[in-house]
Amino acid sequence: MPIKSFDELIAHLKTHHLKKRVAAVCPNDESSHQAIANAERNGIITPLVFQSDDPAEAARQAVEAVRRGEADVIMKGFVNTDVLLRAILNKETGILRKGRVMTHITLAQLADYHKLLFFTDAAVIPYPTQEQRVAQIQYVTHYCQQLGIERPRISLIHCSEKVDAKNFPFTVGYGEIKEMAAQGAFGPCIIDGPLDLKTSCSKESMAVKHIDSPIAGDADALIFPDIEAGNLFYKTITLFCQARTAGVLQGPDVPVVLPSRGDSAESKYLSLCLACLL
Amino acid sequence: MPIKSFDELIAHLKTHHLKKRVAAVCPNDESSHQAIANAERNGIITPLVFQSDDPAEAARQAVEAVRRGEADVIMKGFVNTDVLLRAILNKETGILRKGRVMTHITLAQLADYHKLLFFTDAAVIPYPTQEQRVAQIQYVTHYCQQLGIERPRISLIHCSEKVDAKNFPFTVGYGEIKEMAAQGAFGPCIIDGPLDLKTSCSKESMAVKHIDSPIAGDADALIFPDIEAGNLFYKTITLFCQARTAGVLQGPDVPVVLPSRGDSAESKYLSLCLACLL
Repeated sequence: MPIKSFDELIAHLKTHHLKKRVAAVCPNDESSHQAIANAERNGIITPLVFQSDDPAEAARQAVEAVRRGEADVIMKGFVNTDVLLRAILNKETGILRKGRVMTHITLAQLADYHKLLFFTDAAVIPYPTQEQRVAQIQYVTHYCQQLGIERPRISLIHCSEKVDAKNFPFTVGYGEIKEMAAQGAFGPCIIDGPLDLKTSCSKESMAVKHIDSPIAGDADALIFPDIEAGNLFYKTITLFCQARTAGVLQGPDVPVVLPSRGDSAESKYLSLCLACLL
Repeated sequence: MPIKSFDELIAHLKTHHLKKRVAAVCPNDESSHQAIANAERNGIITPLVFQSDDPAEAARQAVEAVRRGEADVIMKGFVNTDVLLRAILNKETGILRKGRVMTHITLAQLADYHKLLFFTDAAVIPYPTQEQRVAQIQYVTHYCQQLGIERPRISLIHCSEKVDAKNFPFTVGYGEIKEMAAQGAFGPCIIDGPLDLKTSCSKESMAVKHIDSPIAGDADALIFPDIEAGNLFYKTITLFCQARTAGVLQGPDVPVVLPSRGDSAESKYLSLCLACLL
């Protein structure tokens, strides 16, 4: 049975003893501290704290721990995102291999949806190239498999279901991705698009529009066209739909939990859980 | 006192006898029929029905009625959008004057927001030029004034609050719009951006981010960067937040109610009410 809620995800991590070693960089703010304590208490992680008067030094040490194979996840605490990313991206001492795409993935639980929903990219890549989009799908498909979804349904989002090379060139790329999927490039999965949010997540909307898509209003993941869409979806569901969310940065050698200013302790805890799933 | 909900808007239209003449093009589907009957029963509109075996002819006649000064609003019924738009946009017999910008405006009522919220553009302009964005702001500001908002707060939306000429050139345009606003180009209003959705609509989020904006988490209108964002916001709040919405096409000589396939009778009714406000 696939995991369909954050509570099921947490229960899965507790019972399967997948305890991960988390390199926490300056986790001295209240919500990071709470999130880490909660995850440790539940037996999900072993924290490794990297603290220094110089946050860049703490970040460097956390990245070094990953390189030595001593940490499975990095978590940002009270340190600027730029400082942590500089350590991760350092060409000599960092952990983003050449050719790897770095992108942000969110997992959301919405009161009005019947399961968890992944989406890209709320935080990192402004307008994904075709290569970057392919990588986003690979990461998301892998996460879906970890949730126990045998054939994840991945929807390539656009405001309409029509390919429009003139105004929206990326919709042509969507067609190429569907061909790659048909040839097995992403393993067992169902990919369709361009589709809008409603057709992707509501059988009724699909029926009304007389659209026949194998996503069938039952998407496991939404690949958004750009960061404006991804970021707006994230902020809309958290501000207006009481969504619970978890986010990770994917692409470096280990997942990176990179909360925004103002993310709650719960959201940081759920992000840690998501990162521990891989 | 400004109007803060659709119920207040309807009460305002009923009591102020602003009865408008609505040219309805083939309103023979159930939800259009209901919406028109409801608006007529409440004394908000006088319907003029244009029906023909050839929908293009019905559309032509409705547009002609506007040109003769006999209709104040056009409403699309069971007819393809393309067919109606062709009649509206016809260079000789249409009703979009040279130099006018045609754009879509939505008004939303959300359970978790303390007033009505306008936004652009979920349906028409893919990536607005600066000129188109200026027109969007003019239309929206005018609508806000009709709701009784003395100094509407208009937020120019982006995923971040930073101007980024390299990745997001339109954020530079946002700066120019703020200067125009300071010089009075839009009348009494408060315009700020780039701001994200949360900073625009939540005082708490603004405080957490240590951002000082005159929007103050109290936006009356959101100007979205592109159609992907506008369309996604529309679909997210209707699918996952039970939002009530009204939409109109602005720019032609009269507002055009142009529902999507599958919009409810209530949404069509609210759209008629919004169109009657001007």
